[in-house]
Amino acid sequence: MTNMLNDFLSTRKQKIEEALPLYIKELQTPKSLQESMIYSLEAGGKRLRPILVLAVLHTYNKPEELGLATACAIEMIHTYSLIHDDLPCMDDDDLRRGKPTNHKVFGEAIAVLAGDGLLTQSFALIANDPTCSAEQKLRLISELVKASGAEGMVGGQVADMEGEAKKLSIEELQSIHENKTAKLLAFSIIAGAILAEAPEEDINKLREFSYHVGIAFQIRDDILDLEGNQDKLGKPVGSDTVNEKTTYPSLLTMQGAKTKLEDHITKAKQLIKSLSVPSELLEQMCDLIAKRDH
Amino acid sequence: MTNMLNDFLSTRKQKIEEALPLYIKELQTPKSLQESMIYSLEAGGKRLRPILVLAVLHTYNKPEELGLATACAIEMIHTYSLIHDDLPCMDDDDLRRGKPTNHKVFGEAIAVLAGDGLLTQSFALIANDPTCSAEQKLRLISELVKASGAEGMVGGQVADMEGEAKKLSIEELQSIHENKTAKLLAFSIIAGAILAEAPEEDINKLREFSYHVGIAFQIRDDILDLEGNQDKLGKPVGSDTVNEKTTYPSLLTMQGAKTKLEDHITKAKQLIKSLSVPSELLEQMCDLIAKRDH
Repeated sequence: MTNMLNDFLSTRKQKIEEALPLYIKELQTPKSLQESMIYSLEAGGKRLRPILVLAVLHTYNKPEELGLATACAIEMIHTYSLIHDDLPCMDDDDLRRGKPTNHKVFGEAIAVLAGDGLLTQSFALIANDPTCSAEQKLRLISELVKASGAEGMVGGQVADMEGEAKKLSIEELQSIHENKTAKLLAFSIIAGAILAEAPEEDINKLREFSYHVGIAFQIRDDILDLEGNQDKLGKPVGSDTVNEKTTYPSLLTMQGAKTKLEDHITKAKQLIKSLSVPSELLEQMCDLIAKRDH
Repeated sequence: MTNMLNDFLSTRKQKIEEALPLYIKELQTPKSLQESMIYSLEAGGKRLRPILVLAVLHTYNKPEELGLATACAIEMIHTYSLIHDDLPCMDDDDLRRGKPTNHKVFGEAIAVLAGDGLLTQSFALIANDPTCSAEQKLRLISELVKASGAEGMVGGQVADMEGEAKKLSIEELQSIHENKTAKLLAFSIIAGAILAEAPEEDINKLREFSYHVGIAFQIRDDILDLEGNQDKLGKPVGSDTVNEKTTYPSLLTMQGAKTKLEDHITKAKQLIKSLSVPSELLEQMCDLIAKRDH
């Protein structure tokens, strides 16, 4: 990882992590609910989605402050989805990033409601953002619903559950990941472009770019589940095999999955190089996703 | 109930019930999730909240079509909250309005996700509404988050759970109901006023009116739990006593609760009579809430 990228990631991660809990601390709400929401917001993670919003603004030479509220809204949605996914009736996970999951600490009822609270609040972050226009905010909200709701992440989660222990085709697997993971990653990039007032032609290219990055992200996830380091991942490896999940390596062999990962990264880079602005930072983030070890 | 009110309620209920499922049927989403969302949207109920949006527009002599999307968004939020409240980790209810609850039909995981999907979608209904201005939509979204999220309904649900089997003061009980029930009812009324472009002075009066109506609604709920008819309610009576819940009758005696109900209705009517427009319909709805038998 280059020094420039390393520096960008660590400074922006800090900025996001400072801002995130403030949106919840200011709320008039029961203490237990507030603590539960903040617990999961502060439970770590790469903050890849919110950093992408800032990276796109940086690419277009616009103040990154324009993206802070939207970046935090996306991280709240990502966090709520992890809380609900970990519930006993879903994946029934006790640990997340090496820490007890929300319902293990606060109980299931509070965990459900903390997720509901974070999801709801995320829309206020955008609606009340004083740094952008009414039209931008409404476009962001409309795109965020598509990326995170029944037509995106929530629908992908249902398809993923229903596809478990079933032999899926590569098209079915791809569609699940597109909805479950790629659409919210893509929204992070597109949100940055909307806020940067990028040309519509660039927004279309960034949408296609995001698609390839999102699929690459998921292939890397599947590879890490087989080849990763348990300590770095903060979760046990090999769980997909135990759960008989269809993965890219199980469908394509490990070598096939790695080749497919390279293909998507190559296509993503071609697209990003054709933008109206230099895109070195986004290219480097693309490589990071392809080579990440956790 | 007068003929005029009866006619208004039944025609508008029908209009809402026709529109509601269409917003979900058009989504590209897994069949099971779609069926689960529509099942709960079509499970009946008085549709009081969405009808209030239309009633305020009617009061201001504005086309009710202006309120249809927002009315449906509110009903989606109300419906998601019922699905999540009924979950085994929350109230663990098998029946809702005489029908099996969502998780009894579709399983817990789908029920959680159907709730998440409805909550998320509700914001798109407002953001994509072609009948109102960008400023109106953002104000609606911002107020809706306050009414339904951690500072409103979700927070009230937590406070309600934590207050169970505990002796509450009248102030604590009132604060729980204000958050859990009254704020979303109030939002329905205020949303109608925002869409009708009512004078800000009227909006303030309607906010206070809504507060009294919301508390009255909850007192009536507590009374019905003791004196209601199980068949009309679609749920067993006396459950609050079994669960040792603090209620208005348990704090104030039945007669005291009825007097308090009358007080709130009287104050609500005084406020509504001082609006800049005649308010016969809203007065009648106020009486309906005070006297409803289910």
